[in-house]
Amino acid sequence: MAEADLFEFLTRMGDNTLILGHRVSEWCGHAPVLEEDIALANTALDLIGQTQLWLGLAAEVEGKGRTADDLAFLRDAGAFRNLLLVERPNGDFGQTLMRQFLFDAWHHAMLSALCQSADPRVAAIAEKAVKEVAYHLERSADLVIRLGDGTEESHGRMQAALDDIWLYAGEMFLADATDAAMAEAGVAPDPAALKPVWQATVGEVLSDATLTAPDTDFSHKGGRIGIHTEHLGYILAEMQFLQRAYPGAVW
Amino acid sequence: MAEADLFEFLTRMGDNTLILGHRVSEWCGHAPVLEEDIALANTALDLIGQTQLWLGLAAEVEGKGRTADDLAFLRDAGAFRNLLLVERPNGDFGQTLMRQFLFDAWHHAMLSALCQSADPRVAAIAEKAVKEVAYHLERSADLVIRLGDGTEESHGRMQAALDDIWLYAGEMFLADATDAAMAEAGVAPDPAALKPVWQATVGEVLSDATLTAPDTDFSHKGGRIGIHTEHLGYILAEMQFLQRAYPGAVW
Repeated sequence: MAEADLFEFLTRMGDNTLILGHRVSEWCGHAPVLEEDIALANTALDLIGQTQLWLGLAAEVEGKGRTADDLAFLRDAGAFRNLLLVERPNGDFGQTLMRQFLFDAWHHAMLSALCQSADPRVAAIAEKAVKEVAYHLERSADLVIRLGDGTEESHGRMQAALDDIWLYAGEMFLADATDAAMAEAGVAPDPAALKPVWQATVGEVLSDATLTAPDTDFSHKGGRIGIHTEHLGYILAEMQFLQRAYPGAVW
Repeated sequence: MAEADLFEFLTRMGDNTLILGHRVSEWCGHAPVLEEDIALANTALDLIGQTQLWLGLAAEVEGKGRTADDLAFLRDAGAFRNLLLVERPNGDFGQTLMRQFLFDAWHHAMLSALCQSADPRVAAIAEKAVKEVAYHLERSADLVIRLGDGTEESHGRMQAALDDIWLYAGEMFLADATDAAMAEAGVAPDPAALKPVWQATVGEVLSDATLTAPDTDFSHKGGRIGIHTEHLGYILAEMQFLQRAYPGAVW
């Protein structure tokens, strides 16, 4: 297995948590109730914390003297490897939750598999992260059910959110040469192998939520290979402003 | 008159047109009808063109080797001198138009006075800009009247827009030591002297538009001395990204 493939895989993991963490952090101070505001902020902090581990290891594997901060703050959009799903705008609270739930269900399955990684550094990060993500999944699933099977208004919004974000879910299960190399080396699972677990989790929760997934396998894709929607550029402009304007600034 | 005062005055002029030009450019491709989309884009281009002249002269007066581009792309929020009015979010088409109209009415009065500036460089810029701004004012006044005296929906939106943006208009007429120095040297008018002309223009148009200005003299302020709302930081993050991420990049 080439180190370049491992670097690629690690940036995919770390960029997902970085960009979703940033998106979720945008809610800080704006959530509908205080309890949810704090829960969203905590979720964002967990994801940013995981980012430090994934991108820290990526930088170490790369061996070019870059740090996790360099990777987060000094790469432009084309070098980012996150799923398009996580760069989708927050929308309303329901859209944010539906995005989180579909991601959490995948994230938990992926991290569970990575606990068995042949690379002990990867397994160690996964073991730490999976505990946090088990809680993320429990929370987002619970809220999807409560709002989906809630009022007419909340049901309508959750169904609309599902119809919208569903078209970005399929990218999680696509595989390329990097994934094949990871699977071959026992470092990470074949993405397609996660789909049955994800489908079971999602199917059960949506059923309890009285929501219906769109009947399509179509998915937008490109983020995992650096082809992003317009949204990522705006995220990076905000997220990277400080290090771009004041290179090397520290606390 | 100190050159520092002239630099301050020129950045106030140039930052107003830069930030409003950027805000208006955000409409590109999003306006309600094609004709208005093009009108907004042309307005933005006029304002950016005027910015090059004001900030170009500011850089020349400063004499530290900076250019108009350096001033636009490499200053942080605290160094910007634009009115808070122009950094207000676009909101809907009516809010954008009301902001534009209140600014245009001031801008036209200011530029008309600056055509008599004792500094021939200032007068030359004003003479060029006032022709463009006469058209901006004609257009925004016309649309404020058509929408204010339009349907129930458009009237309601224009009144709401006026109620909101009115609280940012008064900053245009405040004066400080810089303004006193400009007036003393005959370079620029006392800001307060522009108020009667502005009030006459605005009063007539609002009356035709069947709109009522809030009965208050209160105004938010701070932009002219570098104390901005949160919105400016986001504008700069987007606007400056390229030069921050790729210092010195050229076409």
